[in-house]
Amino acid sequence: MREQVFWGWGEPGAGPLLQAHADEFLRDLGLPGGIVEVPVALADVRLRAPELPAAARAALEAAVGAGHVLDDAETRVLRCRGKSYLDLLAQRAGDCEAAPDAVVRPADHDQVAAVLRICAEHGVAVVPFGGGTSVVGGLEAPREGFAGVVSLDLGRMDRLESVDERSLTAVFAPGIRLPEAERALGEHGLRLAHAPQSFEWATVGGCVATRSAGQSSTGHGRIDENVVALRCATPAGELATLGAPGTAAGPSLRELVVGSEGALGVITRVALRVRPVAERSRHEGWFARSFADGADALRRLEQEGLAPDVARLSDETETRVGIALAGPGGAGRRAGMAATRALGYGEGCLLVLGWEGDERAIGARRRPAAALLRKAGLLYAGKGPGEGWERQRFAGPYLRDDLLDRGALVETLETATSWTGLEPLRDAVARALTGALGQAVVGCHVSHLYPTGASLYFTVLAARDHDDPAGQWERAKRAAGEAITAAGATITHHHAVGRDHMPWLEAEHGPLGLELLRAAKQRCDPAGVMNPGVLVGR
Amino acid sequence: MREQVFWGWGEPGAGPLLQAHADEFLRDLGLPGGIVEVPVALADVRLRAPELPAAARAALEAAVGAGHVLDDAETRVLRCRGKSYLDLLAQRAGDCEAAPDAVVRPADHDQVAAVLRICAEHGVAVVPFGGGTSVVGGLEAPREGFAGVVSLDLGRMDRLESVDERSLTAVFAPGIRLPEAERALGEHGLRLAHAPQSFEWATVGGCVATRSAGQSSTGHGRIDENVVALRCATPAGELATLGAPGTAAGPSLRELVVGSEGALGVITRVALRVRPVAERSRHEGWFARSFADGADALRRLEQEGLAPDVARLSDETETRVGIALAGPGGAGRRAGMAATRALGYGEGCLLVLGWEGDERAIGARRRPAAALLRKAGLLYAGKGPGEGWERQRFAGPYLRDDLLDRGALVETLETATSWTGLEPLRDAVARALTGALGQAVVGCHVSHLYPTGASLYFTVLAARDHDDPAGQWERAKRAAGEAITAAGATITHHHAVGRDHMPWLEAEHGPLGLELLRAAKQRCDPAGVMNPGVLVGR
Repeated sequence: MREQVFWGWGEPGAGPLLQAHADEFLRDLGLPGGIVEVPVALADVRLRAPELPAAARAALEAAVGAGHVLDDAETRVLRCRGKSYLDLLAQRAGDCEAAPDAVVRPADHDQVAAVLRICAEHGVAVVPFGGGTSVVGGLEAPREGFAGVVSLDLGRMDRLESVDERSLTAVFAPGIRLPEAERALGEHGLRLAHAPQSFEWATVGGCVATRSAGQSSTGHGRIDENVVALRCATPAGELATLGAPGTAAGPSLRELVVGSEGALGVITRVALRVRPVAERSRHEGWFARSFADGADALRRLEQEGLAPDVARLSDETETRVGIALAGPGGAGRRAGMAATRALGYGEGCLLVLGWEGDERAIGARRRPAAALLRKAGLLYAGKGPGEGWERQRFAGPYLRDDLLDRGALVETLETATSWTGLEPLRDAVARALTGALGQAVVGCHVSHLYPTGASLYFTVLAARDHDDPAGQWERAKRAAGEAITAAGATITHHHAVGRDHMPWLEAEHGPLGLELLRAAKQRCDPAGVMNPGVLVGR
Repeated sequence: MREQVFWGWGEPGAGPLLQAHADEFLRDLGLPGGIVEVPVALADVRLRAPELPAAARAALEAAVGAGHVLDDAETRVLRCRGKSYLDLLAQRAGDCEAAPDAVVRPADHDQVAAVLRICAEHGVAVVPFGGGTSVVGGLEAPREGFAGVVSLDLGRMDRLESVDERSLTAVFAPGIRLPEAERALGEHGLRLAHAPQSFEWATVGGCVATRSAGQSSTGHGRIDENVVALRCATPAGELATLGAPGTAAGPSLRELVVGSEGALGVITRVALRVRPVAERSRHEGWFARSFADGADALRRLEQEGLAPDVARLSDETETRVGIALAGPGGAGRRAGMAATRALGYGEGCLLVLGWEGDERAIGARRRPAAALLRKAGLLYAGKGPGEGWERQRFAGPYLRDDLLDRGALVETLETATSWTGLEPLRDAVARALTGALGQAVVGCHVSHLYPTGASLYFTVLAARDHDDPAGQWERAKRAAGEAITAAGATITHHHAVGRDHMPWLEAEHGPLGLELLRAAKQRCDPAGVMNPGVLVGR
């Protein structure tokens, strides 16, 4: 089975490296501009001995087979946390006391159901584990009050179960990773077209459990818009929804399971809408004179039905940082920037647009969109910046590892609001982050368009406070969260709630809303063992 | 305030009348072909004296003003039931023993909240009342176990509260009727574009509470796809959702309130996506050689992104009945049918398509759609059949009153399933209905397209069994419901659950799903006074 490095992103050596010219930019941030620390070796990680009660362990082994209850150090360390900045700080330092006691790998729905029953009976916390890519603390269950913690790894449930080519739906087991899902669908001439930045590792079930959006959500919809039906195992039994394309049969329980983050149960099957494979894609760049100009052009594209599949507008800061940290093509891009400046686009905001389909369809969709952008005063920058983005679309987490080596604080956060609220929200969040961090670079982009509004995604870079690195980020995150909720925006557009966003969940759903989540949890998971601390406070 | 007739649809004399030539068709069904009965007069209706406890009544008067607690006979009779076939049989016969004890008309959210608290305290059942157009028994609360029943009429909460022209959203009070909502939006150059057959009477809040679809759902989405945010008063307090266009902040509580049919609380505010007004519309007819041919063409239109805003395919029976019962233009249509038959389209299946927008946009969308239909072997029948449908799009319930006068059984039911399941489902339901009714005409149409499937809408006509009219329909409905659930389809695509669909709700949501609905109800409405018997059995 494929595994990521325990202290960072991806398989060793898989991703792009930070280029040497980035050091210049990092020095401006007050960093030395070279490697200042490296992660501990696996042998040096601090790990408790597994403490699972013998009876629970025996029952789990009987349920899934002894070979699928693992508690070697590496497997446990790899299931200890997700991939947020705070997660990586802790993992790099070898702080793995919170690792699960065992990793259990069921083969099917019935085995999942058996594992949940056993854990509920023995008071063992269960953390469902798909791709392990959470950046919101979705994977680190507290030990207090439990007889142990197991990570329920869905890696063996990784099949494309069936395809209905006429209805354009496909049924997946939850543990299939997105690249493998695309590969399996490709044999039918179909695709999922769901590509979050975590694409290489994320699983179908994980995307559904966390309401993933995907970089082409503008064209293909969020994962929640593509879920046709699902099946979920809970300690209290099965929850399954019908596959009707539309229904008025009361509240949508599908929408209660989508986004439930393992707090109610484990998604064991998902039927998703699929699409014919795209013959080709076209990615291109445009420049807007300001973020406001660019956002307004995106709003009009979306509201007039002309939006491309991928639409991504960086503000001035992100545009500048993107060039500073860019790969080998960076020199060319820097030269391009100078030309752009000469044309009166100042620092400029880079807009990347992407279309997928056959040549004729792409042309027919692109033409009126390009006309609107030109009329709105945007400058066409050719395919280069678009193809550059496409090449680097999954690079961010790899580069982050290099930035961590160099002593940086590097993290992202995201939200969404109405078109009217977009710019005030961007200003408020950026102000909150720089206010909390002092010398910091805060870039922002819009990357998911809706008729009524859009998302905002912030990337934060600063010199790490080595005396209190976690506290430094926690203060900044708190300030950003307060700015977001004060604006009436959502605390997360696609990263999910996890444990990190719990302080703002009441602002999102209200006190009675939280009561309803608690009531649902109580029915599905009376023992409270399912991913404790997520969605419902303890 | 506008009111419908208590025994049928709309205001007296407002709608079209059944044409004389329809009698020929009715005689084929075994009916005499003339008026055989008329509804009782209001003075002859059987009505209990109002029984609301004095303390409850006083508290309600204090909350909303004495002038807004009504218990005159006409107001009570008008709030007694919805507009299903069984409802109208009972109302026409003057059986109004189930009428509410009082009709309470709050002016705002706080007054609604006060009414709910008072009713919970006094054990009085509350039936929220919007347009009163339910066809699934959504309005008739059982009296047993309650100190009384009040109808909570939202007619005073009928404002367009605000418009965000930039974000294309509008905030409505729940009691505004759809025509008034469109009129108010029109002053901003905007529209809702939500038009169920009940358009003239249905309210915005009622559509949201029942997951209405609307005749142009193919182009503009179901109401649930257009809800941006809502506010709901429950006996346990307020439930409000944020207006973010997309979110990953856990399960969607908005989707728990949408479709809750008054069983959790009362929707007191809705923010909806709106659209620019359409300059014009184009409706036209096509003929398919068979239902299968037509459905396959619709599937391809939808999956290739070429679907119009309105798409409506009648099967052979519905096409024939539509012509038999058509208005003054029927003679022309009958002649047209003869020509169609001569061209090799047999009995033929009429397909009506409709586009809305400016002339250029309609043309650009229509051209590739028409090319696909021609290639699929469909025959263009001109604008006549489309414009005929448009003129008659809200006529059905008026004609039903005339059919009831003539002694007919006339009712509709609907479902939805995948494209693969569509034809087997149509056959199974039609067989179930004719099996239960003997001599009956069962027509069907597809009218809501989704990438993964479509809706099916059945209209049933037969001679009424005057000895047991209710039992006659109940047996047919039961057979159809069993066929629907046996096929794994939804028990309702847009009519909602009410009390009539309760027997099939477990097939829809499963036992644990029903437990979750019960848990939500228990939190919001611990006294169980909210529209009792709907969604959660008593």
